[in-house]
Amino acid sequence: MIKVTLPDGSIKEFDQGSTPMDVAQSISAGLARNVISAKYNDTIIETSTPLTTDGNLTLYTWNDDEGKQAFWHSTSHVMAQAIQDLYPGAKLTIGPAIENGFYYDVDFGEQKISESDFQKIENRMLEIARGKHDFKMRAVTKEEALEYYKKIDNPFKVELIENLEDGTITFCDHDTFTDLCRGGHIPNTGIIKAVKLMNVAGAYWRGNENNPQLTRVYGTSFPKQKELKEYLELLEEAKKRDHRKLGKELELFTFSQKVGQGLPLWLPKGAALRERLENFLKKAQKKAGYEMVVSPHIGNKELYVTSGHYAKYGEDSFQPIKTPHEGEEFLLKPMNCPHHCEMYNSQSWSYRDLPKRFAEFGTVYRYEQSGELHGLTRVRGFTQDDAHIFCTPEQLDEEFKKVIDLTLYVFDSLGFENFTAQVSLRDPENKEKYIGSDDVWEKAENAIINAAKEKGLNYIIETGEAAFYGPKLDFMVKDALGRSWQLGTIQVDYNLPERFDLTYKGSDNESHRPVMIHRAPFGSMERFIAILLEHTGGNFPLWLMPEQAIILSLSEKYEKYSQKVLSLLENHEIRAVLDNRNETIGKKIREAEVKKFPYMLIVGEQEAKDGTISVRKHGEGDIGTMPVEEFAQIINNEIGKTLKAFEV
Amino acid sequence: MIKVTLPDGSIKEFDQGSTPMDVAQSISAGLARNVISAKYNDTIIETSTPLTTDGNLTLYTWNDDEGKQAFWHSTSHVMAQAIQDLYPGAKLTIGPAIENGFYYDVDFGEQKISESDFQKIENRMLEIARGKHDFKMRAVTKEEALEYYKKIDNPFKVELIENLEDGTITFCDHDTFTDLCRGGHIPNTGIIKAVKLMNVAGAYWRGNENNPQLTRVYGTSFPKQKELKEYLELLEEAKKRDHRKLGKELELFTFSQKVGQGLPLWLPKGAALRERLENFLKKAQKKAGYEMVVSPHIGNKELYVTSGHYAKYGEDSFQPIKTPHEGEEFLLKPMNCPHHCEMYNSQSWSYRDLPKRFAEFGTVYRYEQSGELHGLTRVRGFTQDDAHIFCTPEQLDEEFKKVIDLTLYVFDSLGFENFTAQVSLRDPENKEKYIGSDDVWEKAENAIINAAKEKGLNYIIETGEAAFYGPKLDFMVKDALGRSWQLGTIQVDYNLPERFDLTYKGSDNESHRPVMIHRAPFGSMERFIAILLEHTGGNFPLWLMPEQAIILSLSEKYEKYSQKVLSLLENHEIRAVLDNRNETIGKKIREAEVKKFPYMLIVGEQEAKDGTISVRKHGEGDIGTMPVEEFAQIINNEIGKTLKAFEV
Repeated sequence: MIKVTLPDGSIKEFDQGSTPMDVAQSISAGLARNVISAKYNDTIIETSTPLTTDGNLTLYTWNDDEGKQAFWHSTSHVMAQAIQDLYPGAKLTIGPAIENGFYYDVDFGEQKISESDFQKIENRMLEIARGKHDFKMRAVTKEEALEYYKKIDNPFKVELIENLEDGTITFCDHDTFTDLCRGGHIPNTGIIKAVKLMNVAGAYWRGNENNPQLTRVYGTSFPKQKELKEYLELLEEAKKRDHRKLGKELELFTFSQKVGQGLPLWLPKGAALRERLENFLKKAQKKAGYEMVVSPHIGNKELYVTSGHYAKYGEDSFQPIKTPHEGEEFLLKPMNCPHHCEMYNSQSWSYRDLPKRFAEFGTVYRYEQSGELHGLTRVRGFTQDDAHIFCTPEQLDEEFKKVIDLTLYVFDSLGFENFTAQVSLRDPENKEKYIGSDDVWEKAENAIINAAKEKGLNYIIETGEAAFYGPKLDFMVKDALGRSWQLGTIQVDYNLPERFDLTYKGSDNESHRPVMIHRAPFGSMERFIAILLEHTGGNFPLWLMPEQAIILSLSEKYEKYSQKVLSLLENHEIRAVLDNRNETIGKKIREAEVKKFPYMLIVGEQEAKDGTISVRKHGEGDIGTMPVEEFAQIINNEIGKTLKAFEV
Repeated sequence: MIKVTLPDGSIKEFDQGSTPMDVAQSISAGLARNVISAKYNDTIIETSTPLTTDGNLTLYTWNDDEGKQAFWHSTSHVMAQAIQDLYPGAKLTIGPAIENGFYYDVDFGEQKISESDFQKIENRMLEIARGKHDFKMRAVTKEEALEYYKKIDNPFKVELIENLEDGTITFCDHDTFTDLCRGGHIPNTGIIKAVKLMNVAGAYWRGNENNPQLTRVYGTSFPKQKELKEYLELLEEAKKRDHRKLGKELELFTFSQKVGQGLPLWLPKGAALRERLENFLKKAQKKAGYEMVVSPHIGNKELYVTSGHYAKYGEDSFQPIKTPHEGEEFLLKPMNCPHHCEMYNSQSWSYRDLPKRFAEFGTVYRYEQSGELHGLTRVRGFTQDDAHIFCTPEQLDEEFKKVIDLTLYVFDSLGFENFTAQVSLRDPENKEKYIGSDDVWEKAENAIINAAKEKGLNYIIETGEAAFYGPKLDFMVKDALGRSWQLGTIQVDYNLPERFDLTYKGSDNESHRPVMIHRAPFGSMERFIAILLEHTGGNFPLWLMPEQAIILSLSEKYEKYSQKVLSLLENHEIRAVLDNRNETIGKKIREAEVKKFPYMLIVGEQEAKDGTISVRKHGEGDIGTMPVEEFAQIINNEIGKTLKAFEV
């Protein structure tokens, strides 16, 4: 008998040689139907692998990331078989699971493959799947393994095997197909109900451009046809909402090779959008007792030696800026905290002055390799909606709650209704990794957990995930497409107050160390706007829209009247523009739709005569002909409703 | 006879050996009374120097900078004589005129000198001055010169003479005193009517710290006692208004060695002041058709190679920022124009889209040696209220006028009533130094001159002072102490449109080159706020004040009522704070006066009972007891009056 410990801590005894599937069956028939992969003592195994020692077992279904990985890895075997069947002579190399699917790198030799071949391969894959062939792992000797692949003339697998140690090599068989494989499959091919090849790309063998070029075939698969359909629809929608595409269409931002990759240039409409968001947060922060400050974008190297950032990140960052004389060196600031600490230190404080809350829309610069850059979500320069709160340890509890309030208010006002939180605590087994006394950590961790509880957050606790300088709480939001994004963070910091020797005079007239809280509800303006773009598809709340309406004149004849309408709208503080080009009204409407103007105001002969406008609402169509005053009322009502939510 | 050309171009004949004083007398007795120095063929001479060749003569009075320099240089001789008389054995080294006075570096040997000795020296100086001793230049041989100074044991002068060429050495005698001197004196000591020694400081011989330390004695002098008095009063006032002192007292900004010299940290009140100024200009710019943009604070080195800045300033600037991989190099941006050019280039424009006016409060970084740094007026990082206008050559005229309008509006709104303008044109003799065709320059220069004329500016024209890329107009404002500051600039640029290959499609459907205008009414936020601080002494217009009122409670007993007053003020959008400390009301008022609170609101038992506040106005005193509503009315009226001026 062996002892199997389950994730809930319960321990069950089984005959030696029992499989994860046996364990699942012993728990429930439902679980046994759904389990597709397992982990035993930190190793991913098959559900059919015999358990021979005591250990910890986790069972995975499709709903677990590990389950999906096994599913996609297994499907890559099926695709490999299909390719081998359809392209005799094609040589397989490696085929891992990735995020949202899998790929296989194949040497097709003289044969070519393109998207038009996908259907054929998919059909063959489904045929194999329907055969319900079990995936069976089998240990082989190095000699056997080499012999197998030499026989079918696959130098790639031979090379892989030559680098493996005898006694550790396994093959996986299903149907007529065999592959060199470490394991981690679903029980059988029958579980794969839907497959889709996504695209092909070139890839060098082992990523080295001096090696032969291979064809990488990407695919994905699902246990239900419906799930594939939903996934493809999501992809289509995500493509439409790609913030890089929308950013260009809406003329929000641009990039220039000459200025540098990863350094966004905010065009007028984007800059106005940013400013509106900043003003919104400024107003909320002012009510919450924050004070805005302004600090430079560089700092003497000494500043970052003091803060510890230089030792930690110096080599992988933008390098120090030398000066022509005097040997001084500066660094582009990667974060605003050291500057704010020096501001705190510019005067002396009593406990009655605290908390001090210094806020800044601080632009910071962090080096990323060019391959890592992506639109506004991964950049080299970005503006944090940063603030640092300096408070007494006794105030931490209350301050943390206030920061959660502010963050929730921001999410709510911008339409992010679906979010979770993660509380990161220190690893109690490795206390020496963290700065600060037990007492102080305990208080801070309790403060965070209590605040999360009291504010009714949907949170998980991750032990050992705290930063070395303090525990933290991160927010993850789900966007309209169900994708998760990490947004706001709230971090407690005991380290910088030490390093910068921050003090305040307590009620006991002695000098004490304040606690710092770092926080940023948006995270960064760039990332937040990217997420907001993808979440709303560019249809921002009306108050946030760079341009709320566009006047479309039926012809240049109505220029004078159009201008009058424009000026009336301006009087009502409605942001509008005029399209007075000599184009058909159909073309003008289509272009205005693409640019997401919330309202289109059409003026022609009748409107000019009656002093009215014909109003079309984006996504809804015609809503009637009315005087400008009536339209202004509609706009103001709509904004008023949203803005009411802003009263903290 | 020799021919003497005067500055007005007139040529007069004089006997060879005539002096500048003879020339002055030939012009008018009044001029002869006032002339104190002269320049002949680019060399400063005495009014008694015989003219022996044809040449160009300029005569200087006290009103000319050159006249003042001769005056102060001569006074340094008088001080040197006084010191030698009073401190036998003191060894003189060098004693030049400087801005606002002169100094002499002296080796006092064992003797000490301090401010308490000043009176004695000044008295002796005035005694010498009253003797009306002529300053007389005399040529000496190197041998004679060395012999003279060896005899009186002055190794410093000996060292100076050893480095001079025989035949070029002159002494200057007056009264019993002789000094090694190149010349440039007033006629006699009698013209010096008022002297004042300012301070003493240490200085190394020849500025080298390995050399002996000398005592530098600073002084100034005037032709009238009244002028000295006015100067000392101005100094006193300037000291009080020093923006570095006020910035600290008003908690506007601070500096930190760790962040780096010349990099201001804007504290909450200063950041709020900046923001209010920015919002004021944003509003005006919006009305004038500008669009805000946002660009990063770095750019690829390539960007500045394209713009030409790297070739021109690269070596003397902050050095390129290297990256850990990929070999890219970035530069801290010294100006915003290259970024704005790339934004212009991000889409294609028709003549109907122009002018485009991109505005940005863009923070730029320029290296200055630490010795050159001064408060906010000479910094290493500053925020320009920058904008670039891209227009057709035909639009230049109109655009230039609009920019002048905006600039005048800014000066007017902030209380700078006294200003002049300088129009800088190219040197018609050296056209090859400038980029752009004759035709284009002529148009642009005429556009500027016409605009300056039409707007009634008090301007001077400086030929040859244009930048190589275009003509410009600079504004100089006079502050309340009569000091001149260069503020806003408007520059036409033909160079960057070429370098960045900027184009627009003209009405002829052909591609054309736009013209650029650079402009910044404030110049920079840092410099402007410094000047505004010194101009207003910290008593900003009420709308600009970080805090408009302070509530001073007579004791802690009235905390509740004070809080109520504060909240009522907030409802009226009046920025107020509460001083509820347990201090005497006298102390609280004195501190509030130092911090320039425009209004102090005193609350005690009577006020709490009646629901009123006792109002003191800064600089005026008590203005009565009233309900908060009445006070709000006073404030709103005062702001309303100023803000009306904001309607462009």
